[in-house]
Amino acid sequence: MQAMRYDEDAFHSWLARSGTPHPRVRVPIGDDGAVLSAPPGELVVAADLVAEGTHFTSGTDPRLVGRKALARNLSDLAAMAADPWCAVATLALPRGAPTGLARGITEGIRELGAAFDCPLVGGDTGTHGGGVVVSVTVIGTPHGERPVLRSGGREGDVLVLTGAVGGSGRGRHLRFTPRLLEMRRLVAFGPPTAMIDISDGLLLDLARLADASGVGFELEGDRVPLHADAGPGADPEAAFSEGEDFELVAALAPEAWARVEAAWDGPVPLTRIGTLVHEGRWLRLRGERRPARARGFRHA
Amino acid sequence: MQAMRYDEDAFHSWLARSGTPHPRVRVPIGDDGAVLSAPPGELVVAADLVAEGTHFTSGTDPRLVGRKALARNLSDLAAMAADPWCAVATLALPRGAPTGLARGITEGIRELGAAFDCPLVGGDTGTHGGGVVVSVTVIGTPHGERPVLRSGGREGDVLVLTGAVGGSGRGRHLRFTPRLLEMRRLVAFGPPTAMIDISDGLLLDLARLADASGVGFELEGDRVPLHADAGPGADPEAAFSEGEDFELVAALAPEAWARVEAAWDGPVPLTRIGTLVHEGRWLRLRGERRPARARGFRHA
Repeated sequence: MQAMRYDEDAFHSWLARSGTPHPRVRVPIGDDGAVLSAPPGELVVAADLVAEGTHFTSGTDPRLVGRKALARNLSDLAAMAADPWCAVATLALPRGAPTGLARGITEGIRELGAAFDCPLVGGDTGTHGGGVVVSVTVIGTPHGERPVLRSGGREGDVLVLTGAVGGSGRGRHLRFTPRLLEMRRLVAFGPPTAMIDISDGLLLDLARLADASGVGFELEGDRVPLHADAGPGADPEAAFSEGEDFELVAALAPEAWARVEAAWDGPVPLTRIGTLVHEGRWLRLRGERRPARARGFRHA
Repeated sequence: MQAMRYDEDAFHSWLARSGTPHPRVRVPIGDDGAVLSAPPGELVVAADLVAEGTHFTSGTDPRLVGRKALARNLSDLAAMAADPWCAVATLALPRGAPTGLARGITEGIRELGAAFDCPLVGGDTGTHGGGVVVSVTVIGTPHGERPVLRSGGREGDVLVLTGAVGGSGRGRHLRFTPRLLEMRRLVAFGPPTAMIDISDGLLLDLARLADASGVGFELEGDRVPLHADAGPGADPEAAFSEGEDFELVAALAPEAWARVEAAWDGPVPLTRIGTLVHEGRWLRLRGERRPARARGFRHA
């Protein structure tokens, strides 16, 4: 711990200068904390970190690093059926890193935040002996009456998936769009009984939803759309265990699904991929029904 | 990025098992986000990180690491005249770290959180090639009618300091008590016009408060209590530039100070240490008045 001067002041001064006012934010970055109006009702709070060498490779465009750090959090809010209210970020930077690194990360956070009305209201920076670690916390507010949890699923509910899975590691994990618009469309039909986003693999996150709901699931593997990123002739089971798809899996009562299916018009497709069942974890693939191994993706 | 298994599941399962219910928290750790009641009025949000080798040395008791990460944030809330509502934390851990490390950090956060009614409601963990980085975000709610900012100070205001400064680097920086109780006592007399906590050194943070308020300051150096940690015969000017005291500096109208001075009964002493003046940064020491150099402490 030395009294050496890091260029935090230059960064903070840029941060204050370059910020965009937001009607929700009375005191932005620059004081000991930000001050903003509280949302009515409940708060939904989520936090995620991304670390160099684990969630992105060294040399990744700093804007994409910031973008991913916020996008993961917005995906969590979508899974809770919550709209973003604000975000804060802390940046641990390698000692000697240029101030431009912090700016790039911040710009990536702000750009995605602007697209989803999620102002960046505060944070902290520090240097250390390791690589870049970006931690983002988001505060959200229920889009409907209440947040949607993992635990509300019931036997017989239809499982639906936004978009497609597989191959995210080829670059999509840095650029994916959190499914907030799709969540809002879904909630407009009446809230799903349960929802989760796929961070660690379709099968593993599906198992988490089913476990939390006290039921089992049957995944109809042949119905699951595989993303073009997974490549031609991709192994579906591999795609079901890869992580970072950041698509939503929602459980809907069958009558709700009938209404949604008839009217769904995007932004991305919504596909029926299975059912919540009494118990067990089942995968139906090429006509065969067998126990699903809920292997998932973990960052080493 | 490998599909190797880190013991995140064991940690998360411990986390869920060992949590204490809180009336404010409807859905604790375990879903995609926490759900809690929103405070009335305004939100105050602050975030701080601590990184191994910068804010604490390798081998520091994990509980003290977690404690410090939260304490810095609670100190920010105190400086905003806000009470804690909840906290979230992300932990970047060295690859191969024992699960006990994450537990210890979490216990440190929870213990201090329990002392100040600040439940830990969520977070994230990940491993990486660097050392421990703990990022904490706190959400607070104004203790009085509105938060107290750095910018409300006026010429003629009395500057007061909680506790004493200097020598924090000898260990106090890991164990300091955020001045929430003192903030509440102060606000009960009528809110200060401006307030800040000393993270980067008395002179530097005083300059920030004065700058934000558009005034100058005169620090009466001989009145500033030096902490016993600074050692016998400590150089006051060095103590005014050291960081991490995490005491509060508040600006009060002179008539407010008269009321506070007559009635103040702790928990720690409150000392008049100077005045906000028309302009300039002045230090009065041993009878001599001269320009103050607002050098501060920065983590390298």
